[in-house]
Amino acid sequence: MKLSALQISRYQYVPKLPGMLRNGISEICVKDGNATQSVADQEKIKALFPNTYGKNEITFQRGQNTSAPKKQVVGVILSGGQAPGGHNVVCGLYDALKATDKENVLYGFKGGPSGLLEDDYIVFDDAYIDQFRNTGGFDIIGSGRTKLESEEQFAVVAQVCKKHGITAIVIIGGDDSNTNAAVLAEYFAANNTGVQVIGCPKTIDGDLKNEDIECSFGFDTATKTYSEMIGNIERDANSAKKYWHFIKVMGRSASHVALECALETQPNICLIGEEIAAKKMSLSQIAEDIADSVASRAAKGWNFGVAIIPEGIVEFVPEFSVLIAEINELLAGEKTAQFNALPTWEDKYAFIENGLTKESMAVFAILPESIQQQLFLERDPHGNVQVSLIESEKLFSALVKDKLAEKKAAGTYNGKFAPIHHFFGYEGRCAFPSNFDADYCYSLGYNAFMLIQYGYTGYLSKVSNLSKPAEEWIAGGMPITKMMNIERRNGKDKPVIRKALVELDGKPFKFFEANREEWKNETCYTYPGAIQYYGPTEVCDLTTRTLALEQE
Amino acid sequence: MKLSALQISRYQYVPKLPGMLRNGISEICVKDGNATQSVADQEKIKALFPNTYGKNEITFQRGQNTSAPKKQVVGVILSGGQAPGGHNVVCGLYDALKATDKENVLYGFKGGPSGLLEDDYIVFDDAYIDQFRNTGGFDIIGSGRTKLESEEQFAVVAQVCKKHGITAIVIIGGDDSNTNAAVLAEYFAANNTGVQVIGCPKTIDGDLKNEDIECSFGFDTATKTYSEMIGNIERDANSAKKYWHFIKVMGRSASHVALECALETQPNICLIGEEIAAKKMSLSQIAEDIADSVASRAAKGWNFGVAIIPEGIVEFVPEFSVLIAEINELLAGEKTAQFNALPTWEDKYAFIENGLTKESMAVFAILPESIQQQLFLERDPHGNVQVSLIESEKLFSALVKDKLAEKKAAGTYNGKFAPIHHFFGYEGRCAFPSNFDADYCYSLGYNAFMLIQYGYTGYLSKVSNLSKPAEEWIAGGMPITKMMNIERRNGKDKPVIRKALVELDGKPFKFFEANREEWKNETCYTYPGAIQYYGPTEVCDLTTRTLALEQE
Repeated sequence: MKLSALQISRYQYVPKLPGMLRNGISEICVKDGNATQSVADQEKIKALFPNTYGKNEITFQRGQNTSAPKKQVVGVILSGGQAPGGHNVVCGLYDALKATDKENVLYGFKGGPSGLLEDDYIVFDDAYIDQFRNTGGFDIIGSGRTKLESEEQFAVVAQVCKKHGITAIVIIGGDDSNTNAAVLAEYFAANNTGVQVIGCPKTIDGDLKNEDIECSFGFDTATKTYSEMIGNIERDANSAKKYWHFIKVMGRSASHVALECALETQPNICLIGEEIAAKKMSLSQIAEDIADSVASRAAKGWNFGVAIIPEGIVEFVPEFSVLIAEINELLAGEKTAQFNALPTWEDKYAFIENGLTKESMAVFAILPESIQQQLFLERDPHGNVQVSLIESEKLFSALVKDKLAEKKAAGTYNGKFAPIHHFFGYEGRCAFPSNFDADYCYSLGYNAFMLIQYGYTGYLSKVSNLSKPAEEWIAGGMPITKMMNIERRNGKDKPVIRKALVELDGKPFKFFEANREEWKNETCYTYPGAIQYYGPTEVCDLTTRTLALEQE
Repeated sequence: MKLSALQISRYQYVPKLPGMLRNGISEICVKDGNATQSVADQEKIKALFPNTYGKNEITFQRGQNTSAPKKQVVGVILSGGQAPGGHNVVCGLYDALKATDKENVLYGFKGGPSGLLEDDYIVFDDAYIDQFRNTGGFDIIGSGRTKLESEEQFAVVAQVCKKHGITAIVIIGGDDSNTNAAVLAEYFAANNTGVQVIGCPKTIDGDLKNEDIECSFGFDTATKTYSEMIGNIERDANSAKKYWHFIKVMGRSASHVALECALETQPNICLIGEEIAAKKMSLSQIAEDIADSVASRAAKGWNFGVAIIPEGIVEFVPEFSVLIAEINELLAGEKTAQFNALPTWEDKYAFIENGLTKESMAVFAILPESIQQQLFLERDPHGNVQVSLIESEKLFSALVKDKLAEKKAAGTYNGKFAPIHHFFGYEGRCAFPSNFDADYCYSLGYNAFMLIQYGYTGYLSKVSNLSKPAEEWIAGGMPITKMMNIERRNGKDKPVIRKALVELDGKPFKFFEANREEWKNETCYTYPGAIQYYGPTEVCDLTTRTLALEQE
């Protein structure tokens, strides 16, 4: 195994803990906060979580450790998509556990929740853990997308815990995984299994965020990595002066990642799905908006630009959602085979024209043929359109091209338009965590163990005051039920952690909105460059613009 | 203008000069080396360059500056694609020029060679230059791809120089630009214009390299940027354990960039165009080779992997080159219109089947339909296939898919194959230069001015011993004619700098070859992480593996 110079060097990095956790395990005590209630639907949530609802928020502070001595055997899983810093959560958890008692044991279940169901695990020791300190990826134990949500599964988990003497599980995951952590905690409490459950807020998408959780881990590093590349591309655009770059970025439905990257790099265009939905914008309006920037820049001789497109954008365009729903209907059940049997694309097109409403056909008709075909030819096992596979960066550049042709015909545009497409996602999910994420994650893990040690269950490990230096961070725990409301999922009412979309009256969006007109028509690019782990603190320890604006 | 924290911080970086140039302008003298001759075709080259052929190589050393005092008015252009460090060449040139005499003047001609032809320029001053120190991009004066090669153009350049009193031009470019620099130098000398010409070796592609030029600038930073991303993707692949990533990297024809990235990241597969050409491999053989890796890994339960594909790969596959030539022939002249008039793809396919040889049709038939269509539907203004647009990353993954289907039918493969495609190019051309490129480029520019000051023309600024610390670097100059031979270009014999392809008996390829079988079947990924500008020297001042291996 050949390690890179950076990896070897990062092993030496000592993550910074919140000041209140820096005095050693024996000097950490609990300060009780207020009792909590869920953000909405209190009665329903309370009824669903009779044993874990309404508990107090707590913070840790310096003071004599009053937890009961007990040998701790803990299990940990990583759930869902990779996020930088996941390894440090495990390292922080391990270090606090071992610092409390050398005899304590940490099990890592492999491949996500399925590892817990299949009893597939490793037992961590120093030598193994040390290979993963301050590194990216989830390869320490792997991850997976199995949902841990049924009573049958919970019973299996209880069995596995009993077998190993495990009395606490730490689940590192996003909003769904932490929702399930709360349900599992309630199950364990109701059934007197004696097993605690603690969650840790993970996701590069930034949509696990609320008045308690200031940000999910991984968002900082992933957006810095994408911003590095977007900035490099901006500098290339501004040097070559001949391309328009359409850059799609990961982030699922919400546009947090796109917005943060825009705040970092000041591109000409950044679409925000939440705004498009709120304004009920059509594809044509969005394309017109981009084409205006292209034309106004072309008038200055600038036939170049950069546009950021969030991954989830098409779901937010009302007319497009309708089109997708109609297509799913049109090809439901046996109709797919009937459609597939049509010999040529022309025949298929006629079938589509016949089957869609006039309004949806108008939307369909303006799509580039490659996207039209994709909508009908590539479908998931249930016959549905695979929205996440739609190459929206190509969709919008094609629509803009059409708009520019109109402008050219009208004599209002006389430039050149050469688009280039990019999609950034996998590049950022496993980067070496930034100092911020390395510190934050280590603290979350360390803190998670303290919550276990003090007997809490159904809590999310919470570290806050994050725009300040780590010394001033506040460590504690929050009942997960506090963040829940009831939402309709697959036709059923479910208690879930409310997913955070970009708030259009929030400071990050407001800042973007106040500046984007200038960014659109001028060249205001900012080039963040590669994440730095060493050197001046103003370079190495910067948090996101989103967090800075939210907390200013 | 909002500057990033890194950019502000990088302004403070002081690039390292070769030791022999560190004592101030008054302490730099010339040490004459041997007379030179071209690497091949000596008589022909000599005849073409009567005034500039056969000059001595020179190096600089510490000693009293013996150059004649003279007010220097110098022009500089950036030519061709961006490469990190270009700004520092200009800064080094400016600093040496001003350190020699405050009255000296540096003109920057805008947008590449065309700026020189159109007399479009700025005059540099401290305030302007300081904005660009240690930054990426070519936006300081822009670049362009106009070729400066005809006598008519040279006469215009001579006029522009005369108008401003310019007596030296520095051309920062790749092999073609430096070839043209030599021809321009000869023209100026033959016509007694009194204008010197000095070249600087630029290109991220790494193909401007020979026994004198150890590497072109920008290669270090660009490959580090691509390797950062490839490493991140490898870590993601090894965490998610369910995708095969096919990653195309820029680099034009030669596979230097792909090879360096492979040496940095140890992927499962890296294709090397030069090897494929030498072994006359077919598409089918290449796909079989990759499919073997997929199958052997799948047998271990590893349905993931990473393959690096050099941009220029398809040109090196003999049967594919033949196919392209036949297609160009098949659609030459009026036949394009005839082809385009065919109503359906089926009709077009029949036309193609009828027009190609049986051998080429067999190659065509195994291509995925999207590539087939691309070959016929997207053509350059001359009607030729646009080879650089061929999505070879998708081509190979599609071919591998077919091979795996065969293996599955034969019972020798039972895995899952989910490919994801990437193309990295624009992300790396304008990154903040690594410390190596910042130092190397600044030295090249500084050194270029010393060559001017000592009256040389037709020389390439040469800095060598590059795998050693900058203190030990050797600065000097080499007549460009030394690197030339005669090649057939567009039906004519032309004197050109020999382009460097990957040498199959060179140490970098040999190292790759010795290890790739293990990389293919095991998981030996190395994660280089982001370029670091601060911190431990073993992290920040690493050169490329290619250079280290070549000079070990």
